[in-house]
Amino acid sequence: MEYTTLRHEVEDGILTVVLNRPDRLNAFTVEMADELEHTFVSVNDDDTVRAVIVTGAGRAFCAGMDLSSEGNVFGLDESKRPTLADMKNLDDPELRRIRDTGGRVTLAIHACRKPVIAAINGAAVGIGATMTLAMDARLMSTRARFGLVFGKLGIVPEACSTWFLPRLVGMPTALNLVYRAEILNAEVAYIDGLAQAVHEPEMLLSEARALANAWTRDRSPVSVALMRQMLLRNAAAAHPADAHRVDSLAMFYTSIGDGAEGVQAFRDKRPPEFHDKASAMPPFYEEWIETTTP
Amino acid sequence: MEYTTLRHEVEDGILTVVLNRPDRLNAFTVEMADELEHTFVSVNDDDTVRAVIVTGAGRAFCAGMDLSSEGNVFGLDESKRPTLADMKNLDDPELRRIRDTGGRVTLAIHACRKPVIAAINGAAVGIGATMTLAMDARLMSTRARFGLVFGKLGIVPEACSTWFLPRLVGMPTALNLVYRAEILNAEVAYIDGLAQAVHEPEMLLSEARALANAWTRDRSPVSVALMRQMLLRNAAAAHPADAHRVDSLAMFYTSIGDGAEGVQAFRDKRPPEFHDKASAMPPFYEEWIETTTP
Amino acid sequence: MEYTTLRHEVEDGILTVVLNRPDRLNAFTVEMADELEHTFVSVNDDDTVRAVIVTGAGRAFCAGMDLSSEGNVFGLDESKRPTLADMKNLDDPELRRIRDTGGRVTLAIHACRKPVIAAINGAAVGIGATMTLAMDARLMSTRARFGLVFGKLGIVPEACSTWFLPRLVGMPTALNLVYRAEILNAEVAYIDGLAQAVHEPEMLLSEARALANAWTRDRSPVSVALMRQMLLRNAAAAHPADAHRVDSLAMFYTSIGDGAEGVQAFRDKRPPEFHDKASAMPPFYEEWIETTTP
Repeated sequence: MEYTTLRHEVEDGILTVVLNRPDRLNAFTVEMADELEHTFVSVNDDDTVRAVIVTGAGRAFCAGMDLSSEGNVFGLDESKRPTLADMKNLDDPELRRIRDTGGRVTLAIHACRKPVIAAINGAAVGIGATMTLAMDARLMSTRARFGLVFGKLGIVPEACSTWFLPRLVGMPTALNLVYRAEILNAEVAYIDGLAQAVHEPEMLLSEARALANAWTRDRSPVSVALMRQMLLRNAAAAHPADAHRVDSLAMFYTSIGDGAEGVQAFRDKRPPEFHDKASAMPPFYEEWIETTTP
Repeated sequence: MEYTTLRHEVEDGILTVVLNRPDRLNAFTVEMADELEHTFVSVNDDDTVRAVIVTGAGRAFCAGMDLSSEGNVFGLDESKRPTLADMKNLDDPELRRIRDTGGRVTLAIHACRKPVIAAINGAAVGIGATMTLAMDARLMSTRARFGLVFGKLGIVPEACSTWFLPRLVGMPTALNLVYRAEILNAEVAYIDGLAQAVHEPEMLLSEARALANAWTRDRSPVSVALMRQMLLRNAAAAHPADAHRVDSLAMFYTSIGDGAEGVQAFRDKRPPEFHDKASAMPPFYEEWIETTTP
Repeated sequence: MEYTTLRHEVEDGILTVVLNRPDRLNAFTVEMADELEHTFVSVNDDDTVRAVIVTGAGRAFCAGMDLSSEGNVFGLDESKRPTLADMKNLDDPELRRIRDTGGRVTLAIHACRKPVIAAINGAAVGIGATMTLAMDARLMSTRARFGLVFGKLGIVPEACSTWFLPRLVGMPTALNLVYRAEILNAEVAYIDGLAQAVHEPEMLLSEARALANAWTRDRSPVSVALMRQMLLRNAAAAHPADAHRVDSLAMFYTSIGDGAEGVQAFRDKRPPEFHDKASAMPPFYEEWIETTTP
């Protein structure tokens, strides 16, 4: 894929995705959604990448939906655009074609086999804010601003943010943030649990890389991928027996593969040399992902 | 409905519901449950109301179930009262007729299209405490007391409180509060995450009104109603794809209606003039509520 | 059962389970798993016990899986050991025989009718850490160490820990702890929400007993058992109506039994004398547990 709204940089196993429309404050377009979705799907099969960082070019992170490009934002053929009267039966195939653009991106992030870190360098508003809620940590520059402003515009929070937000900050804070719809500075975002750390602007990217390394360097990529999906899926499961089923298979599988090397290296007091690759997940993985995706 | 246990006051779009049996410390009765349930159902169709505040008359908020009126507290015809031997098959129609009174109220609050704020002016004990867990924020007077005392009485927390409480305070605190069954003062309730703010008694109602206004003034009532239900339902869904489905429809719908005005007003740098009404929710709303209610 | 890896002490209604392989830092074996599972199942029918404390003999709590005994850790007949090629179809009966050993223990703790308190006296690593996540509180000695080290070994967190951990510490902290895979001291574990309290080593067990008493002394064992399971199951349910169903039955049942005595004692201003026993749960209990266990 030829990227026109993003810049990709890979260094030392870390892919940095730069939202790259600085003259438009990196405002979100359907094209950017397509390119981000493609990034987070294709990185699963790229064994040169251990972790992903997302940041913005210039002074903003992402100022929200580019209002000048909203025409086809729901992915609809304009000649077949559903009318309000159509919107009753949720199983209507026409209605099922309506897809929130931001949600396509956050669902790809949710399904990703690599940790994803937001390095929020400036304003993150609307979809610029909600896309980061699906990431594994939000590091903010002291210049960051974070706005779940949907309520003030008469619309609703999207990109699956009502699924992610309460899991990050708890329900009372989630309700308050969504109702108030204000733009927060980094300090308030940290207090509310939205930011996991706040850094000086010039340190933001090096701190994000340090975190990505602490999480993934000298690790088995299969172990990391399994741990990520196990946390995201089991945290939302109804009963620990749901976790037990995949625990059993994942532990059995890894203990034969990279886990055997990991344990031996621990006994030998040497660094492990892992060989399994996230592009080749265990045989049970696909069916588990399918059965835990509606 | 003629209310005998409640007093209703509407001012500037905010309905204040006063639990009004001050000579009984506003103790909860089946009649009060009926009136509260009716209040939270009927407010959905009352477009003059943007938000609801619940408080108590006199020195208490609600001292718990009125033990002198427990006769028909489960809504059972005494002549058909199930015996313990009946209580095995959960699908038995007789057993299904047993309904926890407090739960009827909190389920109506959960399904409400308007934010609900507890202004806890004094003792909130038993159902007086658990009914507030279903509300969007709990503001406490410095004179408030909060008691999940069920364990000391040999009964159990009700009103769906074991669903709401861990979402408010986390599981370790929820277990500790329920096992200890103590009556907390406002400061401890705040530290435990039960109270979102503590105010001087004379400021409690004005602070509750200020919060209600910050949440709902100059907002689209349809956007507010959708945001509330999306947070409450998606936070408990198994996968973000569950959120994506309703996100897509809600964003599509609001972007045609109040959202178009909201975006235009934002571009024009003027206050929006919203026209959609929460009494007329989008066509998909009822089916979505149904499919996400067991 | 003759216990060889555990020591059981019952005093004043509190069962203290001591992990008792001090020469091996109480490392976990299949035998210890069997004995722990048996303990948490059989305590449900032992009405002399109100609460359980788990601690370690000597200087460690539990140093993790005993790597010298891993042979049959998944409970498999070696002659029928599944190969990786078998691991695709999750419903394959051979695959279903694979059972994570630690998960057998935490599922038994999850289903237990008595509160369980971890008194973490020293190193708790691997399964030594994850087994405590299923307990109702983790009290740590200042000498405790807590390590979710799976990632460093190329394996995955087990014992249903990806279900329990995000409920204890929230998703951002859970991801960070699991990815980092470091060994934390008690102070950091407390800040992260893993420990509910930190005590001087010589005070740890008396503090654990004080907590067990605050939670269960002078309580109805049936009320305590119902409250525990209601919190654990309803916190993970999709809708409060799921809680309402069991609330209604549990409130109705207890209000006839121990609850009638509890309310009368409260009116008489005397301590209650409860008679119901956790070995004889209400008629609806078994079906409710079954329908809420996958």
